[in-house]
Amino acid sequence: MSKKIHLVLIRHGQSQWNEKNLFTGWTDIDLSQKGREEAKKAGLFLKEKGLTFDCAFTSVLKRAIRTLWIILDEMDLMWIPVTKTWRLNERHYGALQGKNKNLIMEEYGKDQLQKWRRDFSTKPPPLENHQTLSPKIYKDLTLPYGESLKDTQERFLPFWNRKIQPKLQEGSSVLITAHGNSLRALVKHLESVSDNEIAHLNIPTGEPLIYSVDSKGAIVKRIND
Amino acid sequence: MSKKIHLVLIRHGQSQWNEKNLFTGWTDIDLSQKGREEAKKAGLFLKEKGLTFDCAFTSVLKRAIRTLWIILDEMDLMWIPVTKTWRLNERHYGALQGKNKNLIMEEYGKDQLQKWRRDFSTKPPPLENHQTLSPKIYKDLTLPYGESLKDTQERFLPFWNRKIQPKLQEGSSVLITAHGNSLRALVKHLESVSDNEIAHLNIPTGEPLIYSVDSKGAIVKRIND
Repeated sequence: MSKKIHLVLIRHGQSQWNEKNLFTGWTDIDLSQKGREEAKKAGLFLKEKGLTFDCAFTSVLKRAIRTLWIILDEMDLMWIPVTKTWRLNERHYGALQGKNKNLIMEEYGKDQLQKWRRDFSTKPPPLENHQTLSPKIYKDLTLPYGESLKDTQERFLPFWNRKIQPKLQEGSSVLITAHGNSLRALVKHLESVSDNEIAHLNIPTGEPLIYSVDSKGAIVKRIND
Repeated sequence: MSKKIHLVLIRHGQSQWNEKNLFTGWTDIDLSQKGREEAKKAGLFLKEKGLTFDCAFTSVLKRAIRTLWIILDEMDLMWIPVTKTWRLNERHYGALQGKNKNLIMEEYGKDQLQKWRRDFSTKPPPLENHQTLSPKIYKDLTLPYGESLKDTQERFLPFWNRKIQPKLQEGSSVLITAHGNSLRALVKHLESVSDNEIAHLNIPTGEPLIYSVDSKGAIVKRIND
């Protein structure tokens, strides 16, 4: 029997700002206690499914990295190679970062909020400055002032094509821990979701999406819902 | 003022087998609670010194990886690139792995124990099989059956020259978390310690060795004792 290859995507568990209902984006907020428990549960779930991974990818944001660490620890896979990249970061939410979602809804209305959150090409109002971002992490990068989901997809897909897809092609099983919108961008690509349909796709926290992959590295199907 | 470059070496904190006085070698034993606390203290110490790192290297053994994770967490550096390599593993202790150091001393005498532990070119009795090692981690590797410190140095130095030294040369500060003997091998190289003198060099757990590095990537001196 040939080796089974999998691609698994996990959105980080609850963060301290998810808990407070704030837009987070690129702000480097840690997991809440509940988020840590969600990550542990995801690791156990994958272990019980008998899955294993040859390598992993994550963003440079600590809520995704900690989710990965907890899962690798739980699965006894701390030793596998891990690549961290800003290209897997959450969508940059511009001036919405740090703002309460309910207050934004009161000020701008439910429709506008929904557009900012779910539309494919609507950008948030731009961030005036980048004080909340670590200059060290992004030192070689021209920082965005806010991204649409389309922008997020455009900065992530080249990395997918150059770095992740080749791993699947060489027969490696890959784990990605990332964010609601960077994963929406990836699922849109993998499942050919239209620009309109993507507004209705939400990825739950801490629940692995498992794809089986054929021997040529092509995605066959999503195994679970 | 030009940027200050540092190389910092840390031997992992106490493991569950250090606690029981067993030879560990390549057996993948986790940190004890005390070992976790030592790692946290090391991270705090480095943060208070105002040090920071551009990248880190560790072995594929979880006691070194967890030491690194705890330090990176403490220093708010979870995002930096980390390379894991078996070439930084502890010396392979052959058939001594899993054996109690006191019982070995009773059976073979203090002198022989000291030779096995500290001599540069004495090999341990060979391991008969590798059942305690994960075949997944070492799948592309011809496994050793026991190493002298010389063997450890010979498999580590090519990695040092090809992967770590160039990072210092490009101006990156580097953190290495590894093991008593892989670090003895490195310190021997960095400080030109003779084959005889190396028997007297012991690296304490959890205490960073800090080297300043010049703009050409050459080690200037060890800053602390």
